[in-house]
Amino acid sequence: MRKKIAVFVMLLLCMGASLFAQESIESLGFSVDVVWLFLGAILVFIFQAGFALVETGLTRAKNATNITMKNLMDFCFGALVYWAFGWGLMWGKDALGGLIGTDQFFPGTMGLDIESANFYKSWFFQVVFAATSATIVSGAMAERTQFKSYLIYTCFISAFIYPIQGHWVWGGGWLGNIGFHDFAGSTVVHSVGGWAALMGAVVLGPRLGKYMKGQDGKVTVKAFPGHNIPYACLGVFILWFGWFGFNAASTGTSIPDSGTIFSGTSLARVAVTTCLAPSAGAISAMITSWIWFKKPDCSMTMNGVLAGLVAITAPCAVVSPAAAIVIGFIAGILVVLSVEFIDKKLLVDDPVGAVSVHLTNGIFGTLAVGIWANAPSDGVVGLLHGGGLTQLGAQFIGVISVGAWVAITSLVLFLIIKATVGLRVSPKDELRGLDQSEHKSEAYSGFQIFTNM
Amino acid sequence: MRKKIAVFVMLLLCMGASLFAQESIESLGFSVDVVWLFLGAILVFIFQAGFALVETGLTRAKNATNITMKNLMDFCFGALVYWAFGWGLMWGKDALGGLIGTDQFFPGTMGLDIESANFYKSWFFQVVFAATSATIVSGAMAERTQFKSYLIYTCFISAFIYPIQGHWVWGGGWLGNIGFHDFAGSTVVHSVGGWAALMGAVVLGPRLGKYMKGQDGKVTVKAFPGHNIPYACLGVFILWFGWFGFNAASTGTSIPDSGTIFSGTSLARVAVTTCLAPSAGAISAMITSWIWFKKPDCSMTMNGVLAGLVAITAPCAVVSPAAAIVIGFIAGILVVLSVEFIDKKLLVDDPVGAVSVHLTNGIFGTLAVGIWANAPSDGVVGLLHGGGLTQLGAQFIGVISVGAWVAITSLVLFLIIKATVGLRVSPKDELRGLDQSEHKSEAYSGFQIFTNM
Amino acid sequence: MRKKIAVFVMLLLCMGASLFAQESIESLGFSVDVVWLFLGAILVFIFQAGFALVETGLTRAKNATNITMKNLMDFCFGALVYWAFGWGLMWGKDALGGLIGTDQFFPGTMGLDIESANFYKSWFFQVVFAATSATIVSGAMAERTQFKSYLIYTCFISAFIYPIQGHWVWGGGWLGNIGFHDFAGSTVVHSVGGWAALMGAVVLGPRLGKYMKGQDGKVTVKAFPGHNIPYACLGVFILWFGWFGFNAASTGTSIPDSGTIFSGTSLARVAVTTCLAPSAGAISAMITSWIWFKKPDCSMTMNGVLAGLVAITAPCAVVSPAAAIVIGFIAGILVVLSVEFIDKKLLVDDPVGAVSVHLTNGIFGTLAVGIWANAPSDGVVGLLHGGGLTQLGAQFIGVISVGAWVAITSLVLFLIIKATVGLRVSPKDELRGLDQSEHKSEAYSGFQIFTNM
Repeated sequence: MRKKIAVFVMLLLCMGASLFAQESIESLGFSVDVVWLFLGAILVFIFQAGFALVETGLTRAKNATNITMKNLMDFCFGALVYWAFGWGLMWGKDALGGLIGTDQFFPGTMGLDIESANFYKSWFFQVVFAATSATIVSGAMAERTQFKSYLIYTCFISAFIYPIQGHWVWGGGWLGNIGFHDFAGSTVVHSVGGWAALMGAVVLGPRLGKYMKGQDGKVTVKAFPGHNIPYACLGVFILWFGWFGFNAASTGTSIPDSGTIFSGTSLARVAVTTCLAPSAGAISAMITSWIWFKKPDCSMTMNGVLAGLVAITAPCAVVSPAAAIVIGFIAGILVVLSVEFIDKKLLVDDPVGAVSVHLTNGIFGTLAVGIWANAPSDGVVGLLHGGGLTQLGAQFIGVISVGAWVAITSLVLFLIIKATVGLRVSPKDELRGLDQSEHKSEAYSGFQIFTNM
Repeated sequence: MRKKIAVFVMLLLCMGASLFAQESIESLGFSVDVVWLFLGAILVFIFQAGFALVETGLTRAKNATNITMKNLMDFCFGALVYWAFGWGLMWGKDALGGLIGTDQFFPGTMGLDIESANFYKSWFFQVVFAATSATIVSGAMAERTQFKSYLIYTCFISAFIYPIQGHWVWGGGWLGNIGFHDFAGSTVVHSVGGWAALMGAVVLGPRLGKYMKGQDGKVTVKAFPGHNIPYACLGVFILWFGWFGFNAASTGTSIPDSGTIFSGTSLARVAVTTCLAPSAGAISAMITSWIWFKKPDCSMTMNGVLAGLVAITAPCAVVSPAAAIVIGFIAGILVVLSVEFIDKKLLVDDPVGAVSVHLTNGIFGTLAVGIWANAPSDGVVGLLHGGGLTQLGAQFIGVISVGAWVAITSLVLFLIIKATVGLRVSPKDELRGLDQSEHKSEAYSGFQIFTNM
Repeated sequence: MRKKIAVFVMLLLCMGASLFAQESIESLGFSVDVVWLFLGAILVFIFQAGFALVETGLTRAKNATNITMKNLMDFCFGALVYWAFGWGLMWGKDALGGLIGTDQFFPGTMGLDIESANFYKSWFFQVVFAATSATIVSGAMAERTQFKSYLIYTCFISAFIYPIQGHWVWGGGWLGNIGFHDFAGSTVVHSVGGWAALMGAVVLGPRLGKYMKGQDGKVTVKAFPGHNIPYACLGVFILWFGWFGFNAASTGTSIPDSGTIFSGTSLARVAVTTCLAPSAGAISAMITSWIWFKKPDCSMTMNGVLAGLVAITAPCAVVSPAAAIVIGFIAGILVVLSVEFIDKKLLVDDPVGAVSVHLTNGIFGTLAVGIWANAPSDGVVGLLHGGGLTQLGAQFIGVISVGAWVAITSLVLFLIIKATVGLRVSPKDELRGLDQSEHKSEAYSGFQIFTNM
C-alpha cells in the first residue's frame, strides 16, 4: 500500500512537472510572439524614414524640409488618432454585420489595465501599418500642398478611412468572412494609400509648369528630376529592409486562430518570396526603361523594387518562389507603364510615382492571389492551381469595395478641405519652395545654390 | 513484482523526460533572453548613426567630417575603456556601501572563460548605453572643440563617470536600494550626457559670432542653421527606431530577479508608451513653435520627438498609454522653452539643443515616474495614483545626486583638459572649419561652395 | 487490477504530456531558429545600403547614381541567379569528393513543396551572404566600368564563383572536412569579393588622371577625394550594425550538428568580439594615419572599422575578448599599409580601398584563427594556445585554394568580358561621369555644381 501511495505521489509530481513545463512553453511561446511582433513593428516603423528619403530624393531641394516634416508628422498624429479612434474602429467589437468595430476607444486612459492583453501585444504592430497607409499619400501631393491641410487629411485617413476597411478584412469584418485574402496588405495598406494619393493629386492639380499647352493645343510634359538619387536609393533599401518585417511578421496577426504565430515554414517562405519578387521587379522595370528610354533609368528601377514589394504583399504566404518571381517581373513592367500612362495620358502629376507603385500594383498583387495562390491547407487556391474563379472573385470584390470606400471618402475629404482651409499653397509660395513659405527655413542652409525651377 | 519494476522504470523515464523538457525550456528561455538583449543592443548601437546624422545635419558643412569622426570614435574608444574599466566599476562586486564595483576589469584577457556567463550575455547591451551617454556631449560642444581633447574626455566619461553612477542605480548600488526607479535611463544615460554637455558648453564658450554685444550693451544672438535637414530627420527616425530597443530591451536587465525577461505584457507596453510619448512631444513642440515663431519649425519639432523619447525612458514600463501621451506633450513644450532659455537667457551655445533634450527632459522624465507611475505590483506608484511623495522623493534624490556627481566630475575634467592640452581650436581654425584644421579634409569635396560663416 | 490499470493510464497520460511538451519545445526551438536566421538575414541585407553609401560617399558626385544602381542591381540579379544555380551548387548533394553540389536548382518552381524545409529556413540567410561577396567588387571598379558589363560579371560571381567555394567550406565540401575554420566568412565571403575586386581593378586599369608619368619617369599619384563623407560614415555604421547579424547569426548555420542554434553563450560572445575588434581597428588605423599623415584621416579610420570587422569574421566565435582587440588593432594598421602599398607601389587604382579591407584583412582574419583560437571543445585551437601548426596549416590551405579559385576564374571572366562586350566606358564618358553616360541622369539635379575632375 505504501508503495502504491508512493507511486501515486510520484505520478502526481511527474504530471505536475509536465503540466508546469507545458505552461512555461505557452508563456515562452507568448513571449516569442511578442518579440516577433515587436520586431516586425520596428521594421515597419522604419518605413517612415524610407518614404521620407524616397520622396525627398525624388523631388526638389526647395521642398526637402517640408517633405521630411510631413513624413514625420503623419506618423506622430497618426499614432495618436489611431490610438484614440482607429484601433477601436478596426479591432473593436463588430457591429452592423461586419462593417465597423465599436469599442476599445482611447484604450488605457484610465489605468494600466486594459480589457485584453491583446491591445498591448498588437497595437504597435497595427499602428505602423496605419501610418504606412497614410504616409504614401504625401509623395503624390508633394511640392504644392499646404502643411496644415496635410495634417488634417492625414488624421482622417489614420483615424477613420484606413481602420474601417481594415476592420472589413482583418478585424473580423465582412470581406475576411467571404474569403478575401490579403496577407499583409496589398489592398488594406497600399491600395488605400494609393487611392487617396490619386484623389489628392487630382483635386490638387499639377505643379506649376508641369503641363504646358502650346499654341497648337499640344501639351508638353516637363519632368522635374529629383535632387538626390542616393537619398532615394537609401530609402528604397530601408523600405525593402522594413518590408521583410511588414510581410513576415504578418504571420503573427493574419491567422488569428493559429495559436502560435509559426505554422511550419510559413514565416521563412514569406521571407523568400519577399526577397525574390522585388528583385524580379527591379530587373523588369530596368529592362523596360532600357528598351523604352534607351538607358537603364534609376528612378524607374527603384520603383520596380517597390512595385514588386507591393505586389507580393498580398500573396507572399501562399505562392511558390517561382510564382513570386513571375509576379515581381510583371509588377516591374506594370509600374513603368502606369507611371507613363498617369503622367502622359491622364496628365495627373504624381511627383514620385506613388499611385503606380501602391495603387496599380496593390490591385495587381491582390488579384495575383486569385491566380497564383497554391495553399490548399489554408483554403487559398488560385486559378492556375485548380481553384477556378472562386478566389479570384473574392479578390475582385475586395479590390472594388475597398477602392470605392477609399476613393469616395478621400475625394469628399479633399474637396471639403479645399473649400474650407484650402489645399494648395499660393503660386508664389510654390515657386519659392515650401521650405521657406511653410517653415521659414532652408533644408541646406549655406550649402545649396539653386534656381527656382 | 516485475510489473511494479516496470511501472517504476516507466515512472523514472517519464520524470526524466519531464525534467529534460524543463531543462530545455530553461535553456531555450536563456536563448530567447540572449537574442532579445542582442536585438536591443544592436538597436541602441545604431544610435551612434542617429546622433551623427542629427548633429551633422544641424551644424555647418565645414565641420561635417569632424562631427562624424567624433561620433564614430567615441564609440570605438568607449567600447575599449568600458571593457577595461567601466564594466567592472558598474557591475563588479559592490564596495563602500553601494558606491562602486570592484572586480571584473579587463574581462576575458586570459582566455574564453569568464567568471560568469552574465558578462557575455549583458556586456554588449551595456556598452551601447555607455556609448550613448558619451556621444550626447559631442552635439553641445560641436564646431569648436579640438579632436584630441574630445577623445580624452569621452574616454573618461565611458570609463569612470558613467559607470560609477550606473552602479548606484542599476549595478546594485545605493540609489537602486532606496527605490529610485529609472527604467531605461532618463537619468542614468540621458541626464549624464546632458550634464556633461552643459559643463562642456560652458567651459568651451560660444562659437565665434554667436553672441555679439552691441555698443548699447545689448547682445544679439545669431542663429547658425544646420546645413542638411534631411540628415537630421533621418537621424531622428533612426534614434526613434533604436529607442524601441533602448526601452523595451531594458525589460531584460533592470528587473534582475525576474527569472525570465518577460513579465506578462510589460515588454509590449513599453513599446506602446515609447511610440505615443514622442508622437505627442513632436506635436506639442510643433504647436509651441508655430505659436511662438509663426511657423512650424522643423528642428524644434525633431527635438520634440527626442524630448518625448528621453522623458518616457524612465517611466516607460510603469505608466499607462494616456499618461505617456501627457508626459510626451509636456516634454515637447519643455524642450522649446529650454532651448530658448539656454540660448537667449543663459547665453550658452548648444548648437543642437542637446542639453534641452537630454538634461531638461531627462530630469522631467525621472520625476514623471514619481507623478504618473501606476505599477503597484512593482512597488512603483506615483503621486497621482495614491503613492504620495515617497516615489517622487526617491526620484528627486536620484536626480540631484547623479547630477552633482556628473556636473562636478565633468567640470573638473574639462577644466583640467583646458589647462593642459587645451579644449578649443584656434579662432582661425574655427573659421576655416574643423574638417580642414583637424582632419585636412573636406566633407563634400568638389561639391560644395560655401562661405566661412 | 483496476488500480493497476488506472496507474498505467495515468502513466501513459503523463508520458504523453511530457512527449507533447518535448515536441512543442522542438517546434518552438525551430521557430526561434527561424526567427534568428531571419533576423540575421535582414541585418546582412542592409549591407547593400551600407556598401552603396560607403562607395558613393568615397567617390565623385558625377558617378553617384551609377554606383547606387550597381549596388541595387547586383543584389537583384544575385538573388535570382543564386536561387536558380547558386543554392544548388553550394548546398546540393555533394559530388566529386567535396567539390560541388549537384541538385536543388530552381527550387520551388513546381509548387510550394520543396524537398526539405531547410531551403526555406536557410535560403534568405545564404543569399545575402552571396550578395555581399558580389557587391564588394563594385567599389574597386567604381567610376569607369560599363553598367552592362558589371551586370554580367556580378551574375557569374553570385551564380558560380561564390557558391562553388562556399560548398568547399560550408556546404559539406573538402575544405570544411580538413578542419578549415571560417566562422562567418573572412575567406568565404570577404576574400572572395576582395580577389575579384583586385582582378577587376587590374584588368580595368586606373581612372583617367590617377597616375601621371612625368618627363623624369616618376609617377605622380593623384587622390580623388570622395564627395560625401557623411554618406560614407553612415554606411560604415550600417555595415557594423548589419555585421552583428552577419557574425552572430552564423551560429545558426556553421555548426550544422548543434541541434539548436545556441550552444551556451557562443552567440553572445560573437557579439562581444564583433564589437571590440572593429573598435580597436578604428583606433589603430586612426593612430597610424595620424602619425603618417600628421592628421587623423577620416576615410582611413572608417576603413579601420571595416578592416577590424573583416578580420574578426572568421575567428569571432573562437577567440577571447582580449584576442579580438589584438586582432582588430593589427587589422587597422594593416589596412592603412595595404591601401598605401596598392595605391603607391602596385599602382592599382581601388577607389574605396575594397581590396585592402576585404582581401588583405580577409586573409589576415582567416590566419588569425590559426593563431589566437582557443576553443578546444569545438576542436579549434591556435598556435598561441597550444594547437601547434595544425589549425594554422588548414587555414593556409583554405586561403590559398579559395584564392586561386577566385583569382583565376574572375580573371578569366573579366578578360572575356573585356574582349567581347567591353569592360570600360570611353574616356569621354568617364570624364562626363557615368550618371550621364550610362543612365542619362544626374544624381543631384538642380543642386550640384561640379567640374569634371
